[in-house]
Amino acid sequence: MSRFLSVIAVADAVAAAEKIAPAQKTETVPVEQSAGRVLAGDIAADVDIPGFDRSVVDGYAVRSADTTGAGNSAPSLLQCIGRVAMGTHDTNLRIGTAECTYIPTGGVLPEGADAAVMVEYTEEAGDTILVKKTVAHGENILLRDDDFKTGEVVFHAGRRLSPQDAGVLAACGCATVMVAKKPVIGIISTGNELVPATIVPGPGQVRDANAPMLASWLREYGCEPRLCGIVKDEREAFETMIAKALPACDVILLSGGSSKDDRDMTAGVIAGKGTVLVHGVAIAPGKPTIIGQINNKPVFGLPGHPASAFVVLIAIVRPLLDKMLGLDHPMLPTMKAILAENIPSQRGREEYVRVKVEKGVATPLFGKSGLLNTLVKSQGIIRIPAGFEGLEKGSDVEVILW
Amino acid sequence: MSRFLSVIAVADAVAAAEKIAPAQKTETVPVEQSAGRVLAGDIAADVDIPGFDRSVVDGYAVRSADTTGAGNSAPSLLQCIGRVAMGTHDTNLRIGTAECTYIPTGGVLPEGADAAVMVEYTEEAGDTILVKKTVAHGENILLRDDDFKTGEVVFHAGRRLSPQDAGVLAACGCATVMVAKKPVIGIISTGNELVPATIVPGPGQVRDANAPMLASWLREYGCEPRLCGIVKDEREAFETMIAKALPACDVILLSGGSSKDDRDMTAGVIAGKGTVLVHGVAIAPGKPTIIGQINNKPVFGLPGHPASAFVVLIAIVRPLLDKMLGLDHPMLPTMKAILAENIPSQRGREEYVRVKVEKGVATPLFGKSGLLNTLVKSQGIIRIPAGFEGLEKGSDVEVILW
Repeated sequence: MSRFLSVIAVADAVAAAEKIAPAQKTETVPVEQSAGRVLAGDIAADVDIPGFDRSVVDGYAVRSADTTGAGNSAPSLLQCIGRVAMGTHDTNLRIGTAECTYIPTGGVLPEGADAAVMVEYTEEAGDTILVKKTVAHGENILLRDDDFKTGEVVFHAGRRLSPQDAGVLAACGCATVMVAKKPVIGIISTGNELVPATIVPGPGQVRDANAPMLASWLREYGCEPRLCGIVKDEREAFETMIAKALPACDVILLSGGSSKDDRDMTAGVIAGKGTVLVHGVAIAPGKPTIIGQINNKPVFGLPGHPASAFVVLIAIVRPLLDKMLGLDHPMLPTMKAILAENIPSQRGREEYVRVKVEKGVATPLFGKSGLLNTLVKSQGIIRIPAGFEGLEKGSDVEVILW
Repeated sequence: MSRFLSVIAVADAVAAAEKIAPAQKTETVPVEQSAGRVLAGDIAADVDIPGFDRSVVDGYAVRSADTTGAGNSAPSLLQCIGRVAMGTHDTNLRIGTAECTYIPTGGVLPEGADAAVMVEYTEEAGDTILVKKTVAHGENILLRDDDFKTGEVVFHAGRRLSPQDAGVLAACGCATVMVAKKPVIGIISTGNELVPATIVPGPGQVRDANAPMLASWLREYGCEPRLCGIVKDEREAFETMIAKALPACDVILLSGGSSKDDRDMTAGVIAGKGTVLVHGVAIAPGKPTIIGQINNKPVFGLPGHPASAFVVLIAIVRPLLDKMLGLDHPMLPTMKAILAENIPSQRGREEYVRVKVEKGVATPLFGKSGLLNTLVKSQGIIRIPAGFEGLEKGSDVEVILW
């Protein structure tokens, strides 16, 4: 191993990762469990929606011409010839001149009617209804297929489905829906210094914070994380754990110990069993990132600092996940903010700076690297592209929220 | 039933809902499954984090005084007396004047050292290390408890946990964490016109879009939805289904048929088996909302239009869920935008208008009520408080994203 990394640009690292992304797998889920999942095929309406002309108010179905000039002082007097029942279409109900029917919201508009008047603007006097408002042709009704026409593509593949989408899918006849299968991501923690949360760290030891953080983020992003545990910096144990994890996983993340020796061993193990494609990326934090492949499966070596691991997860691993999920655009929540202070940056590397955001103002959290507490005190990160020497106070910035 | 609803203000409806919120229940989950859950108690660090003075770089542990004046042309020459191993503390390693040790990132700082110099600024010549940069006292190291001190409260109850929080919790010794139990929310769909997604709607029928939409939103908000199915507008069947659903649920949502008859029957059934607290809220859409209680459990009657049901879910049901979850603040994602057009509104009722958001500009989606497609075409809703007659073009608005 060389003492210095030969770094490549972030865009090249992303391209290398995307190139080895396993193909999208799909599965079918009940529509009420589809929100948050990525649609794996286009969805078209299987029927006209609505399937009939319907009222959108509780009131009376009328011929709009019969209400011309109607008002509080001069109501139109209409003969009520019946009631529209919900969930059925009574074809015997036909409205002639100066006639109307009671119609509930969602009821089928009877033949002859071309509008509905809200009950609030009417008064009953036996079978005679006083209509105190003029309604226009088409008022308070929806026409057949006003929402969607049969065959119309309602959603395209690649869409991350929302709760409302689930409603619309049900309306389109999807009791189940084909979505991208959740990529299974194995997480192996490496480093002689690491102990699990259950252990009180001894001298020189730290608890493994990265694995639960990575697993949680992956779960929220629509993946299925598999925590494989902690392996010491011993080549054989390391190789055994990778060999055990690989068959059940689509991608492996090696959540690195923080030392150079550990990273070098990680690269050595990947090179021994497969290929190292990238070792070193022009990104800060996150420079010692490794991208490789074993048995045609992507294997990432992430840096040891939690903040660095998180940045590499977002900037380099995520595009590969997006490809596996078939996402039409990344699902990173972002917000605009104004930068409170100058941020100097080193040209030639992409830099990510943690920021606190209050009332639309983003304040960079400088200070010692390697702290966990900045992860909790910050609301997100901002990206400074490689070609910039920094960002000026007062700039508009986009904060990637976490 | 009266022909007209006597409406109450949204704030009063919310207060009525919050008053009947069942108490928070708690459960313990593995830390890597805690993201998105609401913390049910304060969490303090059980140890100092880090537990020892450590290097944050790969390089050499030094006495900073020995590097004073060091530079490329005049390096300090230090004697390397050993290597710090990861995950242990070699108390025999002590650095004297003009001495140093190799130290990996995360290694325990040896006695005598007060700084670390990055390997990039050094050169090896046998046991002699050329240090080409001056480092200050404390540079490139973290001191014991720099992150968190033993006993320090790291997170307060009521926090919605993020992926990074899961990492910090693990560092604080939490392999598991106590969180609010997911409220179980039963959803009963009512209405003679409703059929499930699997059925092709006959004349006058529509597919039930609300139940999958509500269930999906509830799941994303941290609840456990239970779809109970569709019940026709028959009092006995309705009562039977409520009786069956109640024991297993904390809250029942009656996802209404759209007609007044159906809503009246809903209110009647609640009144018959329990109490109707609210029937009619000064909110648009969503006026015919019902809040009641059966066997001390909250029962909501939601309006039939999907958009109306959604608004009532956000504006009136959510505060009750927040209380059950013990949330310190609502989890509604929002964004600031500029309003593209005037929106007229009726004073005296709180109005919610769907908007499309592009490049920070929110354009109201007017048009026919009762359409599903506006749910999909809009990115969120904006709230117009009851005291306003509308919002002016160019106003700053907050969009509640969906």
